[in-house]
Amino acid sequence: MKPMGPIPTWFAAEEGMLLIGGCGAASLVDEAGDTPLFVYDMGIVEAQVRRFREAIPAAVALHYAIKANPFPSLLARLAALVDGFDVASGGELARALQAGVDPAHVSFAGPGKRDDELEAAIHAGVTLNLESEGEARRALAIADRLGRTPRLAVRVNPDFDLKGAGMRMGGGAKPFGVDAERAAALAKSVIGAGADWRGWHIFAGSQNLDPLAIIETQAATIALAARLSEEVDASPPLVNLGGGFGLAYFPGDERLDIRPIGVALDSALEALPDVLQGSAFALELGRWLVGEAGVYLTRVIDVKKSQGETFVVVDGGLHHQLAASGNFGTVVRRNYPMAVANRFGAALAEEAVTVVGCLCTPIDRLGDRVALPPVAEGDLIAIFLAGAYGATASPAAFLGHPSPAELLLG
Amino acid sequence: MKPMGPIPTWFAAEEGMLLIGGCGAASLVDEAGDTPLFVYDMGIVEAQVRRFREAIPAAVALHYAIKANPFPSLLARLAALVDGFDVASGGELARALQAGVDPAHVSFAGPGKRDDELEAAIHAGVTLNLESEGEARRALAIADRLGRTPRLAVRVNPDFDLKGAGMRMGGGAKPFGVDAERAAALAKSVIGAGADWRGWHIFAGSQNLDPLAIIETQAATIALAARLSEEVDASPPLVNLGGGFGLAYFPGDERLDIRPIGVALDSALEALPDVLQGSAFALELGRWLVGEAGVYLTRVIDVKKSQGETFVVVDGGLHHQLAASGNFGTVVRRNYPMAVANRFGAALAEEAVTVVGCLCTPIDRLGDRVALPPVAEGDLIAIFLAGAYGATASPAAFLGHPSPAELLLG
Repeated sequence: MKPMGPIPTWFAAEEGMLLIGGCGAASLVDEAGDTPLFVYDMGIVEAQVRRFREAIPAAVALHYAIKANPFPSLLARLAALVDGFDVASGGELARALQAGVDPAHVSFAGPGKRDDELEAAIHAGVTLNLESEGEARRALAIADRLGRTPRLAVRVNPDFDLKGAGMRMGGGAKPFGVDAERAAALAKSVIGAGADWRGWHIFAGSQNLDPLAIIETQAATIALAARLSEEVDASPPLVNLGGGFGLAYFPGDERLDIRPIGVALDSALEALPDVLQGSAFALELGRWLVGEAGVYLTRVIDVKKSQGETFVVVDGGLHHQLAASGNFGTVVRRNYPMAVANRFGAALAEEAVTVVGCLCTPIDRLGDRVALPPVAEGDLIAIFLAGAYGATASPAAFLGHPSPAELLLG
Repeated sequence: MKPMGPIPTWFAAEEGMLLIGGCGAASLVDEAGDTPLFVYDMGIVEAQVRRFREAIPAAVALHYAIKANPFPSLLARLAALVDGFDVASGGELARALQAGVDPAHVSFAGPGKRDDELEAAIHAGVTLNLESEGEARRALAIADRLGRTPRLAVRVNPDFDLKGAGMRMGGGAKPFGVDAERAAALAKSVIGAGADWRGWHIFAGSQNLDPLAIIETQAATIALAARLSEEVDASPPLVNLGGGFGLAYFPGDERLDIRPIGVALDSALEALPDVLQGSAFALELGRWLVGEAGVYLTRVIDVKKSQGETFVVVDGGLHHQLAASGNFGTVVRRNYPMAVANRFGAALAEEAVTVVGCLCTPIDRLGDRVALPPVAEGDLIAIFLAGAYGATASPAAFLGHPSPAELLLG
């Protein structure tokens, strides 16, 4: 038996049936018409937003990073809950605008923005987080051609990283932003060229569960923003402090307590250096806002034995949930939390089972020797933490299966 | 500097421009209208089919495993070149039939076939490679309801594996097929139920570059098929020997020489046990037939420095070429072969560069400190071995970028 990650505490059952947003899993499948499907509980997203608002000083805006989950009705709901959106492509920009968010509260980061994407962003009036001197040159030329004043922030590759982050995005040589020692010069040059300089974007890492590491990184980020602003000799309108709030996916992971982060931010904002006194601040979160709200439901097609091991074969797989199969940025495969949705909380079977997807490849493994209640053909398996980097971060066309349904509840 | 895999020997240049199927890379981009794109050279696929026909005894049929690349016009061409198709889903089955292949030469393998997929397969008259006793029960019930005689082969989880295979699919507990010791009983039971028993499907592993390992595995596969057939006391109409022919993706890989495999198969077929005297044989290949034929072309958006390292940022990425980023079944990331398409064969720059995709995530790395000629904005980067497990095996919707074009040449 191998352990699995902790099931998020939002979930309970009624007569053994997993409830999502107050609805039984089986009735959600009926509503969708088929398995597999993704269900997103808007109530959990709202609760995460409340957790943020309660813990984090009001002066720090909450931005949503669309890449975590761009499901249109989710975006439309989030547009009313958060203070801004961060997009990473022209396609995401179009989705943000369709969701009704004010372009003034949209920023666009990404190391490889094409000219057509820069043009769409400048035309819409969103802020470009500049990733290089070359991108600044292209953006200024396009703005000039359009006769628009571009809104430009400078993304900084910080000279520190977020310790223990699942994905490090600063510290050392990186494709993101410009190195800290060149950032002020770039800001000065875009100001000199007549752009509307929007400040700094400093993103040191993501998926972190250690509040102290996040606190330390945010302090370093504020200090770096102050130092760079002094070099520029101008107050940045906005300091985007990045994100980094992680989720407990795996065995031994503990849920991140963001309250100490709020306390530390409060102190930091009280003691701001002069150059940042007039600045706004933002945190940019994706996974943390929506990840726990999503459940992937898939039906058991077969339960079979091989060499004494039991395999539970489901009609979903890595084509919808690549990260749960361990093939998306993880080195060692570990088990996401999962359950038998129609036997939630029942006594475990004596024997562990391996849950595999329907794809004809050995890497389509969703649960490796996990402890579940007895499983039979027709049962529903729930894989948790499916709200972020699920449906769109998986190879949906692989092996020609239908696309999964997505339902937003609440 | 880190090494990259060997560029397949098919490719050359004219005045420094990479030729694919006799066309310059830049003109192919013009034809597609934009980057990134996949180009497949049918001439290379045909050459691989010829290599197979020359090396492998005529008594061994050549089947194409659609999952490697289901691009419709490629399938239509392959339908005329190979002897059968293997599909892994109802969607692939529909594509095979659309491509015009005779259903009698289609087989359907996959550990999680849904009832609607079984029904479509039985209705079309294709062979189902049964993966379990439970699937046999469901298939027989569906056939009974349809009033059809189902064509059923038994997929066997062999009691050996393919040594050195990139993906092991036999040996030990596996979700594929039934364990060898239960295979004969399953065949007897479907024969007893009135099905048209088609024989054995024995797939021990894929992506192997060692001819001796493949020869050994094929010998063991034939011996296993004979033993099981004697247990059944019936000659199998077809023995599908699986695949396993690999491609040289990585540094140090040597191209597989299939000639010794053909010689060994020839001897094996000469010395067949009585029970297999009337049987047909097939090899089922996907990657080996089409992988080298594909090139992924992506344009350089930016060339930037960070901490002394040079990053080449392209407009493609892991959303189209997940395997090249090292996130598809590989434990240690290694470099696929790549080149500057418009400076093919030019002298290398003094300094290695890191080629990253346009996605805003640190895992979008296509080439890690690779030696290339000097690279500038607007250049075209070619990533080779993109003909298999590329476009459909990647998370195309991730970050909302447009789908890549696909062109079939020749």
